[in-house]
Amino acid sequence: MHTPLERNIEFEQKGNDILTIGEVLIDMISDEYVKGDGSTTYRNYFGGSPANIAMNAKKLGIHSIVASAVGNDGMGRFLINHLNEEGIESGLVQKVDTSTSMVVVTKSKGTPIPIFYRGADYQIEYTQKLEKALLDSKIVHFSCWPISMEPARQTINKVLEVASENGILISFDPNYHPLIWQKGENGIEYVKSIIRKVDIIKPSEDDAERLFGKDIPENQLQKFFGLGAKLVIMTLGKDGAIVSNGKEIIRLDSLATEVVDTTGAGDAFWSGFYTALIKGYTIREALQLGSASSAFKLKYTGAVANLPKLENLKELYGL
Amino acid sequence: MHTPLERNIEFEQKGNDILTIGEVLIDMISDEYVKGDGSTTYRNYFGGSPANIAMNAKKLGIHSIVASAVGNDGMGRFLINHLNEEGIESGLVQKVDTSTSMVVVTKSKGTPIPIFYRGADYQIEYTQKLEKALLDSKIVHFSCWPISMEPARQTINKVLEVASENGILISFDPNYHPLIWQKGENGIEYVKSIIRKVDIIKPSEDDAERLFGKDIPENQLQKFFGLGAKLVIMTLGKDGAIVSNGKEIIRLDSLATEVVDTTGAGDAFWSGFYTALIKGYTIREALQLGSASSAFKLKYTGAVANLPKLENLKELYGL
Repeated sequence: MHTPLERNIEFEQKGNDILTIGEVLIDMISDEYVKGDGSTTYRNYFGGSPANIAMNAKKLGIHSIVASAVGNDGMGRFLINHLNEEGIESGLVQKVDTSTSMVVVTKSKGTPIPIFYRGADYQIEYTQKLEKALLDSKIVHFSCWPISMEPARQTINKVLEVASENGILISFDPNYHPLIWQKGENGIEYVKSIIRKVDIIKPSEDDAERLFGKDIPENQLQKFFGLGAKLVIMTLGKDGAIVSNGKEIIRLDSLATEVVDTTGAGDAFWSGFYTALIKGYTIREALQLGSASSAFKLKYTGAVANLPKLENLKELYGL
Repeated sequence: MHTPLERNIEFEQKGNDILTIGEVLIDMISDEYVKGDGSTTYRNYFGGSPANIAMNAKKLGIHSIVASAVGNDGMGRFLINHLNEEGIESGLVQKVDTSTSMVVVTKSKGTPIPIFYRGADYQIEYTQKLEKALLDSKIVHFSCWPISMEPARQTINKVLEVASENGILISFDPNYHPLIWQKGENGIEYVKSIIRKVDIIKPSEDDAERLFGKDIPENQLQKFFGLGAKLVIMTLGKDGAIVSNGKEIIRLDSLATEVVDTTGAGDAFWSGFYTALIKGYTIREALQLGSASSAFKLKYTGAVANLPKLENLKELYGL
């Protein structure tokens, strides 16, 4: 691709804007700090980055669908109800014979270490219905979750093939984490092998470090291009982001004025960025709107904030 | 075997009385009834029938050890701490690279349907340390959990072989449930194939129905003997139990006077029964002491009640 950063991306006319594929799951998060015997209370929350992106994008003003798999159980029903309440099409959430995936997070004084209970999420199958939705979408997005286990990996492989053949923009979140990967496989090598097959990646500094070891952002960018990346948006937390299409490099300052909760800030970035691309903004403008979306989310607690329409967001941040 | 019910069982002198092998896990149980959006609060409890039996048996006055596997995570540490607090040897609880198993139970107006998150529990390996503990025990006990998945199934196969060769009494809880079984395998046939390899089984009426379909208790007993069972203790809830060694049949009345919580009543039965066998009581007496232990537990909330020493329990129930 190597689309210049000052150019917009042309999309064919489609019924849907963005299709996100991957984990929809329960975040089981402790209410309080653990005491005495280690027993504590938890609460079940809706979770999963692809669904959060779809919900954000809808709030910002574009059409979104999420494809995933949940268990045929109470937690799966809770997740589907939540999507329905948010007005997100849930017809591509497959109901399978495995428990709904869950991540348990126990708050503690140090960094909490999540415990992953993966079940239904990686059972997503490539169906005719999924293909139909894919062909009717402008952008397809997925993260490391579905590529880390079979049969979801095969589903994503088929998605990559069909999306490439049909000029659908492919975006990948290389959020590699050893704890989600299937045992006995080198996940890092597999993630690296996916990068040349997609149009856009948005690694965080931590993601890059997990894949390549510690280095300065400019060098990490080059490593992604060495793997065949086309557009790399590397987020640097409070320092904004560094972006390159392999020819130009730009730095984006963070627009955050107030940081209440960093959960979901990356998903908010993706959502603002995608919404702006769909609405015809240049890549550079879309990146700024991604930053604005992320800055807005940072002011609120929870994974999904009540984002305004993109036009209002643009005004709010003087863009 | 076909030990007459009026006889006691002779045990060799050993360092330990009972070794239970299998699931030690988190019961994540909702505090309240689900409301509105389906979000609710949960609390993590210590769970797993083999560990509950070991804890009960210790309270009743014999030596017990539990062998299991937990994840190298916060929930695994919670479980091990709990065992230590209860004074149960935890050196045979293996720490593995998979999340600690969990069962999520959401209370509702109907019967709550548990969601099973199996991880570490079935990773238990047959180690030299486990063999040493087995050879130094008089009784070994396991349930359907470890035989439902590999590699735990191989571990139990090896335990069965070594226990048989060394005259260790083998007890099996045929608590078959399709939701714990590995996908694509006929768990019922596998459970049936284990019955001839053990000395004692204690199915509930529901267990028998899952294995054979609905029938009257006397007929269900015969089906177990058809599979090579030696001593069958079939519990009938409030109606007590029906027991046979294939020649004699006896009925045991329930000794329960007050039923507050049925959780763990079966484990309490096992514990009273085993403790009495170890202490030299006849099988018939041990069955009555199992009933007494179960009746005691039924008066209290929670999986493990603060059982008295067996001698006090005997007196309490006038046995």
